[in-house]
Amino acid sequence: MAIRILITGGTFDKEYDELQGRLYFKDTHLQEMLRLGRCRLDLTIRTLMMIDSLEMADADRGVILENCRQSPESQIVITHGTDTMVETAQVLGSHLTGKTVVLTGAMIPWAFGSSDGLFNLGSALSFVQALPPGVYIAMNGRCFTWDNVRKNRAAGHFEALRPETARS
Amino acid sequence: MAIRILITGGTFDKEYDELQGRLYFKDTHLQEMLRLGRCRLDLTIRTLMMIDSLEMADADRGVILENCRQSPESQIVITHGTDTMVETAQVLGSHLTGKTVVLTGAMIPWAFGSSDGLFNLGSALSFVQALPPGVYIAMNGRCFTWDNVRKNRAAGHFEALRPETARS
Amino acid sequence: MAIRILITGGTFDKEYDELQGRLYFKDTHLQEMLRLGRCRLDLTIRTLMMIDSLEMADADRGVILENCRQSPESQIVITHGTDTMVETAQVLGSHLTGKTVVLTGAMIPWAFGSSDGLFNLGSALSFVQALPPGVYIAMNGRCFTWDNVRKNRAAGHFEALRPETARS
Amino acid sequence: MAIRILITGGTFDKEYDELQGRLYFKDTHLQEMLRLGRCRLDLTIRTLMMIDSLEMADADRGVILENCRQSPESQIVITHGTDTMVETAQVLGSHLTGKTVVLTGAMIPWAFGSSDGLFNLGSALSFVQALPPGVYIAMNGRCFTWDNVRKNRAAGHFEALRPETARS
Repeated sequence: MAIRILITGGTFDKEYDELQGRLYFKDTHLQEMLRLGRCRLDLTIRTLMMIDSLEMADADRGVILENCRQSPESQIVITHGTDTMVETAQVLGSHLTGKTVVLTGAMIPWAFGSSDGLFNLGSALSFVQALPPGVYIAMNGRCFTWDNVRKNRAAGHFEALRPETARS
Repeated sequence: MAIRILITGGTFDKEYDELQGRLYFKDTHLQEMLRLGRCRLDLTIRTLMMIDSLEMADADRGVILENCRQSPESQIVITHGTDTMVETAQVLGSHLTGKTVVLTGAMIPWAFGSSDGLFNLGSALSFVQALPPGVYIAMNGRCFTWDNVRKNRAAGHFEALRPETARS
Repeated sequence: MAIRILITGGTFDKEYDELQGRLYFKDTHLQEMLRLGRCRLDLTIRTLMMIDSLEMADADRGVILENCRQSPESQIVITHGTDTMVETAQVLGSHLTGKTVVLTGAMIPWAFGSSDGLFNLGSALSFVQALPPGVYIAMNGRCFTWDNVRKNRAAGHFEALRPETARS
Repeated sequence: MAIRILITGGTFDKEYDELQGRLYFKDTHLQEMLRLGRCRLDLTIRTLMMIDSLEMADADRGVILENCRQSPESQIVITHGTDTMVETAQVLGSHLTGKTVVLTGAMIPWAFGSSDGLFNLGSALSFVQALPPGVYIAMNGRCFTWDNVRKNRAAGHFEALRPETARS
């Protein structure tokens, strides 16, 4: 059972530009993270874009949706900036059926020693195998359905809009 | 929905003794790992023992089983050395009902920069929320049921005894 | 023989703000770095400011100079942003006598796993003990006198203006 | 002005063997450490042996001495286990003239995130450039002459036998 990973950028992949002294996107760190996790899953990885999610436009979300639709794998993990992760989840959740899609990201760039990225990646790759078809956000150990989640920007975490039922 | 974490030691928690120049067990790194993962789950953590799993005796497995039985939480993650993780899973799997128990560990100590521990911890905490009651081993992105798994010592990873059905 | 460390900020101490998704200054990482290096020197540490060296004004350099003058220790290490480290070294070099001052910094923030900061700190604390009075810049293993150094911004390193004589 | 680095193993280069669950020596981490430190020195690196310094015999010290004698570079850094670093320094100190030799090592293996190795390496490469000919041990920010140093095994650090004079 293969899993597809779609990369879109986000804090996950922010890198420090030592010539300019600022954060930027170069290459994804996903392969390095999977190697560190000694991940033994059958994965197909595609980089769709490499952007800050604040800059993500409707057209970009269309690209992500189309990639989910055409994916031969029915389990899909998407790495995504946290700022607009909920918006993308809503687009996917209201247009996609028959696949399990889990969006994840990081509060701290992977290139920082203190990143939560590896924890979240392990989490997303597990939820995607175990959950029924649907669109979810997995962050910091928790898993939310696309229509019951928001980012609490002041606190810097994700939370449910209303009490969750059942499982997660 | 709270999750209980039972700590038993294993590679996860091996530390470098700079006076003796060898590996040993001091304190668990679990709290530090959960902080790094910015884990936002409701957790109860108990350290049952702090040993190399090669030294784990039947009595120790009895202690682990008893702790699972008496746990008010029905979702339990156990950190465990990889060498005898399968044996402990078999004891739990054949004596415990009604609870979801996921054993996990690490191939490389957490204190090493290159540890797979954080990835595995994120994975175990996710599988335990999403899987039906049963006893499982979650390592390196994969999840095995207690009666269909072995550690391949030569290769250094876990594998199924026979083709897996359904889910994972 | 005590050494004084003066902290001014710079890349060394840039931190990732997970709520805003940008780099900022909070606290210095110096104590943590010295602990990691198991540094056994007799040190007095003062934080003079916590700024990007591009924002450093003449008045700030006056504060640094005054602190060097009044330092009871004759060996002084200054952590400083690399962008204007040379300018500060020139102010100190042309106004200070009788003390050994070594400026150092980092190309990559300490909070990043890949920082050169610990290497540079070990280097600066060593040069300051071994060199005669004067003002120096120690970066990436090399040591330059204040009047024979520039930052090569395109390449991202420091270099001598003219061939060095003698020692380093 | 080139510097020669001689590698002999020691805690510096201990690695975790994930199949056996113990520490061992594979390859040196020196190149990786120099890359991290963005070291811009002209270096020639030779691996003489890769052993725990407790296993170092007289013949091994003879090899090290001979390599120092024949080195075209007059500045030499030696990475060495801490347990018998003093003994090797004594052999070199009483047989070698005209060269500056600095021995260094680590209390914690480099492969551990918490290693002091990078700090010590930056320190040794700086002392070797700035000190007059002689044999020294540079550890944790301090520098000792070969005939006035011992390892305090209980405390896990190096210290002078008698009050130091002058410089360091």
